[in-house]
Formats: sequence, C-alpha cells, structure tokens
Amino acid sequence: MDVLKHFKKGSPKPELPNDGVLRLFLMRFCPYSQRASLVLAAKHIPHHKIYIDLSEKPEWYTDFSPLGKVPAVQLTAVSGQPTIVESLVIAEYLDEQYPVHQLFPADPLRKAQDKILIERLTPTIKAVYPLLFTIDPPEDALPKFENALDVFEVELTKRGTPYFGGTQIGMVDYMIWPWFERFPALKHVLPERYELDKTRFAKLLNWTDLMANDEAIKEIALDSQVHAQFMVTRQAGAPNYDVAFPVTVD
Amino acid sequence: MDVLKHFKKGSPKPELPNDGVLRLFLMRFCPYSQRASLVLAAKHIPHHKIYIDLSEKPEWYTDFSPLGKVPAVQLTAVSGQPTIVESLVIAEYLDEQYPVHQLFPADPLRKAQDKILIERLTPTIKAVYPLLFTIDPPEDALPKFENALDVFEVELTKRGTPYFGGTQIGMVDYMIWPWFERFPALKHVLPERYELDKTRFAKLLNWTDLMANDEAIKEIALDSQVHAQFMVTRQAGAPNYDVAFPVTVD
Repeated sequence: MDVLKHFKKGSPKPELPNDGVLRLFLMRFCPYSQRASLVLAAKHIPHHKIYIDLSEKPEWYTDFSPLGKVPAVQLTAVSGQPTIVESLVIAEYLDEQYPVHQLFPADPLRKAQDKILIERLTPTIKAVYPLLFTIDPPEDALPKFENALDVFEVELTKRGTPYFGGTQIGMVDYMIWPWFERFPALKHVLPERYELDKTRFAKLLNWTDLMANDEAIKEIALDSQVHAQFMVTRQAGAPNYDVAFPVTVD
Repeated sequence: MDVLKHFKKGSPKPELPNDGVLRLFLMRFCPYSQRASLVLAAKHIPHHKIYIDLSEKPEWYTDFSPLGKVPAVQLTAVSGQPTIVESLVIAEYLDEQYPVHQLFPADPLRKAQDKILIERLTPTIKAVYPLLFTIDPPEDALPKFENALDVFEVELTKRGTPYFGGTQIGMVDYMIWPWFERFPALKHVLPERYELDKTRFAKLLNWTDLMANDEAIKEIALDSQVHAQFMVTRQAGAPNYDVAFPVTVD
C-alpha cells in the first residue's frame, strides 16, 4: 500500500519494493501529476505512488528523478531503471507502451490537432492561477479566465461529441480534466461564491458531469472543498499537501 | 518559386497555388520555423514557403493560420485544409505521416527520453537570448549560457555517438540545431569575439561540424554573419527579416 503522506526534507529514504512495478512520483494536488495518474488508472497499469513535498523536496529525491521534477515515472523493470518526466511525455509514452484503450487518435493529423488543443489550455491555466492561489486577485482576473475558457466551449460545440475524444474519453479529456476538477473550488475561495455560467459554458458543464462519472477520474478525484482547503494553505504561503489525506500516517 | 520576402501588414494577399502541396508559413530567422523546415527538407517533402513578418503580420494571415502562429503547416490536400502549429507538434506529425527516414526512435522509451532532452534546451534558449538580442547583456549572461549548454555536452558523451540520434541524425539533432547555428553569431555581436571553448564543448563542436554538412541543414542554413546582421536590427528594435534574402523582390 502507498504511504499516504508527502515525503519531505529530512524524511528517511523509503525502501521501495523492487518488484518491476512502475513508480509514480507525484504531489497530490499537482494537476500535472494528476495527468499521469489518470492515464495509469484509465489503462489499469499497476504502479506505486510516492508523494513528494514540492516546497521541501527530500534530499534523496534526485536518486529517483534526477532533475527533481514531478510527476516522474520510474520504469523499474527496464535496465538502468530510467525515469521519465514531463506530464505530456509520460502520457504519450504510456499510450504507446500500453496500447490497450488507446487515448490519442491513431491518425497523425487528429493526434496533432489534439496536442494543439491541449497546448491551448495554457492561457486558461495562467488565467485561473491568480483566482485560485492569491488572496486578492485583480479585478479583471475573472473575465480573463472566462474568455480563455471559451476556446473549449467552442471546440466542444465544433466537435459535436460529448467528449473531446469523441463518443469516448480521449487524451485531451484527461489532460485538461485536472484544472476543470479545480474550477468548482472557486465557489469556496472567491467571496462571491462564483460558479461557471450555465448558459455560456453549457457544453463544458455537461462534459464535466460526464467526466466526473468516469472510473479513472473517480479513483483520483478530490472534492472541491478539499481543493479549496489546500488553496487556502497555499495562499497563506504554507502549502499543506497532506490535507488530501483523511488521516496522516507517520 | 517561393516569394523571397516577408509578407506584412498591408501586403496584398497572395494567390497561393491550390496544388495539394503543403504550405509552410514561417519567418526566415525564427528557429522554431527552422525546425519545421528541417524536417520537411530531411524527408524531401514538397512544400511552398510563405514568409511572414512577425512584427507586422499581414491582415489575411489568420485565414491560413487561425491562431496567427508561426511556424504553421497547412495541409491543402486534406478536407477543410487544416493548419497545424507548434514546431514539435508539426515535427512529430510529419514524422508519423511521412515515415520514410524516421527521425524519432520507434521505441516509446527512447522517444520519450529524446523529447525530454529537447525540452531541456529551454534553459539554453532563455540563456542565449540576452546575448543575441540585447545591446548590453548582463555580466553573468555568458557563464549562465555556458552552464546551460553543459547538459548537451554531457549527454553526447553519455550517448557515445556522433549524433544525439546515434550514428545518424535524429529528431533531437534537428530540433536543437537552429540555436547551435546561431551561437557562432556571438562572435560578431559580442565585443570580445566570443567562441565556445574548444575543450569544454569538444563533443558539441565536433557534432556542429558534422551537422553543418548535412544536406537538409545546408539547404536552409544562413551564415553567422547574416544571423548577426539580423540580430543587430532586432537589438535596435527594428527587426529586418528580409536581410536573409540577397535581393528583395518587390
């Protein structure tokens, strides 16, 4: 069973089982880590989860992930036990190495278009950060966020399917989901109990409801109140990563 | 024949042949554009080149590249004539769609490792910008640049092959090349006639010499003096993209 706390500076180096099972190094609230978790869950790939405190990384972490990055996937069954990083690189590696339930379209053009769409989340990510993680976001932060989000409402309308991946969840859906899981926390961290407009974002809200019922997503999801609890600790400059776990095991 | 000037604001919209041949929209000095050019040249994929002035984009450019981005490849033989953007997305699309002379390794792990290495160029790109494009770069700019570059010297030593791709040029080689083509221009733009240290960067300099003889690279290369000439116009706040062309056709 995975240790349900974040290892940090001073934490003794854990003895990890050398059983050829993949190791995922992650932070529980990191949306990029969640991308890797989702692909592993969707494809039912066995793995150990090792949680890393990002403000105070354990001294031994670079033994596993030489660049100190999270998420990182260590391939313990491969000679040299290499580690791969970058959420999109990990996702595509897993999709190629474990082709059951393929998430990217096989067609090179559709795959390219999906990758471009994933990149187009960047302005939304940048726009939502001040809202989630600063105590007093600038006045134009909310309209900027909504304008950035329009891209995805328009794209879902254009595609005419319930998911970005079509009639089934695909790579775009999983790669953008972590941020959509966090948007409802705005209701708790913003004074005006903000929610996405039901008309302007009708398709996206329908998509959100469908996504929330996916097995892989349910397995990893955190409630918006827990996200908000973390955001408040981070806004205060002392992120508490372990609020994700009901009981912290020492 | 391609028009050898950069289209800009006010330029009449060109009549592009509708012959099913790919269209590459680029800026002649843009290293990201060069990535796309190199893959097209290496794979002998016929294409038209349309040069775009990035400081003053032509009004009609979004008709071809809806996000206004460069490089952009328009697939005129595909229904709807879609355009794809992002240099790495374009490169991987071309590698999958035109598998002759495959540039990425077929093995998913090696491919993932090569993508991570390409991402690791980012600190070098950031470090070299003040040296190339500002009139009075900060004092620590040069050591920062050299420290960032060490990654690639180390990696080439570790791989023990002449190219990052092995005994033949691969995707990493082409994706990082555009910046290495520009480094010798430092000799012209920095007062101390700077060159990379022949001992510290021995493997990289050997690699540079090999790369400079590749047919695809030769087809697209610009002399370091021409790069320097452009940098000086850009340092002065008035980038002259057309210095790339010996005679500007009006």
